[in-house]
Amino acid sequence: MEEVLTLIKREIAEIEKVLEKLQISQHPFINQVSEYVIFAGGKRIRPLICVLSAKALSSAPLVNLYEVSLLLEYLHAATLLHDDVVDSAEFRRGRKAARNLWGNQATILVGDYLFAKALKIASRLKNPEIMEVITDTTLLLSEGEVLQLLHLDDTEISDTAYYEVIFRKTAVLMACSCKVGALLAGSEAFAKTLFEYGYNIGMAFQIIDDLLDYISQETGKDRGKDFMEGKVTLPFILAYREAPPAEREELHRLLKSKSTDQKDFERAYYLIQKNNGFENSLKEAKKFVEKAKDCLSLLPSSPYKEALLFLCKYLLERKK
Amino acid sequence: MEEVLTLIKREIAEIEKVLEKLQISQHPFINQVSEYVIFAGGKRIRPLICVLSAKALSSAPLVNLYEVSLLLEYLHAATLLHDDVVDSAEFRRGRKAARNLWGNQATILVGDYLFAKALKIASRLKNPEIMEVITDTTLLLSEGEVLQLLHLDDTEISDTAYYEVIFRKTAVLMACSCKVGALLAGSEAFAKTLFEYGYNIGMAFQIIDDLLDYISQETGKDRGKDFMEGKVTLPFILAYREAPPAEREELHRLLKSKSTDQKDFERAYYLIQKNNGFENSLKEAKKFVEKAKDCLSLLPSSPYKEALLFLCKYLLERKK
Repeated sequence: MEEVLTLIKREIAEIEKVLEKLQISQHPFINQVSEYVIFAGGKRIRPLICVLSAKALSSAPLVNLYEVSLLLEYLHAATLLHDDVVDSAEFRRGRKAARNLWGNQATILVGDYLFAKALKIASRLKNPEIMEVITDTTLLLSEGEVLQLLHLDDTEISDTAYYEVIFRKTAVLMACSCKVGALLAGSEAFAKTLFEYGYNIGMAFQIIDDLLDYISQETGKDRGKDFMEGKVTLPFILAYREAPPAEREELHRLLKSKSTDQKDFERAYYLIQKNNGFENSLKEAKKFVEKAKDCLSLLPSSPYKEALLFLCKYLLERKK
Repeated sequence: MEEVLTLIKREIAEIEKVLEKLQISQHPFINQVSEYVIFAGGKRIRPLICVLSAKALSSAPLVNLYEVSLLLEYLHAATLLHDDVVDSAEFRRGRKAARNLWGNQATILVGDYLFAKALKIASRLKNPEIMEVITDTTLLLSEGEVLQLLHLDDTEISDTAYYEVIFRKTAVLMACSCKVGALLAGSEAFAKTLFEYGYNIGMAFQIIDDLLDYISQETGKDRGKDFMEGKVTLPFILAYREAPPAEREELHRLLKSKSTDQKDFERAYYLIQKNNGFENSLKEAKKFVEKAKDCLSLLPSSPYKEALLFLCKYLLERKK
């Protein structure tokens, strides 16, 4: 256990080191905006699972592994920049959102740049399988963003529709990260298995993220932010389904009001808890995590496999 | 001459036909927004030069040629959607801009989708050279958009800096279109030559576009739109350089005012004409066109080569 943690920390440190050395652009302005969002305390989960997947399958040193793993972080950063514009976000991870410092225009365009940069890094590999999974992923990602926009405040959204959105929005990029790792390791055979692993931890990751928006005890976290923006997520959906008509109506009204009054949020919190929204969401996350663990069963034993298993546990326990 | 025109019309008709058949997305909303910008009277110049380049080099039928050529139209459409958000444009080609119908949020995200869709089409070819030129191009495109934003109203911008911007903004995608055509035809040897051809007509195309913003006689064209937005383009730059100090100052003031008063625009027009801004811009466009023609000299004779030559002439004579 101690060893696994050390291994993960070492890999993240290596990822950070390579990230700091990689030149994003020759233009200081593009670098400045990009670095602002990239070095904002991200967990590097996408490059990490890419690296761990590759190393779990190949003991030979892999050229460019860390650099390639970082294209997944660039893709992620690109979506964050565009998300913040689309959501008119004021803050991101406790700091001013990039759009608040450089405006929407620059934020959109630097987002485009990071997206293009990620694909450029991928194309240098001249590996059609890797290119394919990455372009499939970016297509689903952007589709997910549109779907989310359309269903944003639809209180009648089904859990199936919610899963469709979070698959595209989060899980597909994690699935892609793992598959790219497997393909870099030259393992076509495990590429599908690791894609599945990534998919399942990605689904769990997003459910927990949406749960933390309600229940996070962390200081600095904007508790209730999603709810106040009128975003319907799993705790809401599952509670809404179980709630008696009068409470349903109240939940609907509270969400639609987009009230930033803490009292309104606490009332919604109470109603969701009363109707088992949090408990049942956690159960769903656990199911995905169990499936993720199952995916790993066929992998050869190694410290990297242990690290991938550890991440399953970590996801359910994280507090921020 | 008549024959060349017939050939071009036939190719454009084929491009339109394939474009109408291609499914952009499974989601009606994404299709609606995408089709609005894609079927807005575009000239299809990018797919056209891709197809002509390919056919000028290969007489064998090329699988997927039209479909692949259309990825260049998708890329172009993606940049138009983001441009309109960045410029807060009210209109595009005489119609309401997409952002005016569906809002900035959807416009940004559907732009992202079209961008991803273009790369997805490219990746299906499993041709690393094609993928490389396309990712290089998207990187330069997005860089160009950022540079344009930074230099937008810099009256002291040099013609070199202007060329840097229009290279990235316009010429690189045309160069890419031609190179993709050559690579589809399997001609590595001519890929560079046709890239050069596309670059030169692209530079001329943008100069003429910027010129037409001032001098267009077409009804429906928003004459003076760029100037009123404070955009510095070649006619301004070249006139500014020749103008005596008092007129320079006046030009600077008029541009910075972003006045939408027609009288102010006409005064700027007068000063730019007096200082040979239009005449000298046209000369520069002609130089690029001459270089484009030179690039074609080594190409084997064919009706398609004639069509590429015809486009050089057309570019200088177009009125809208």
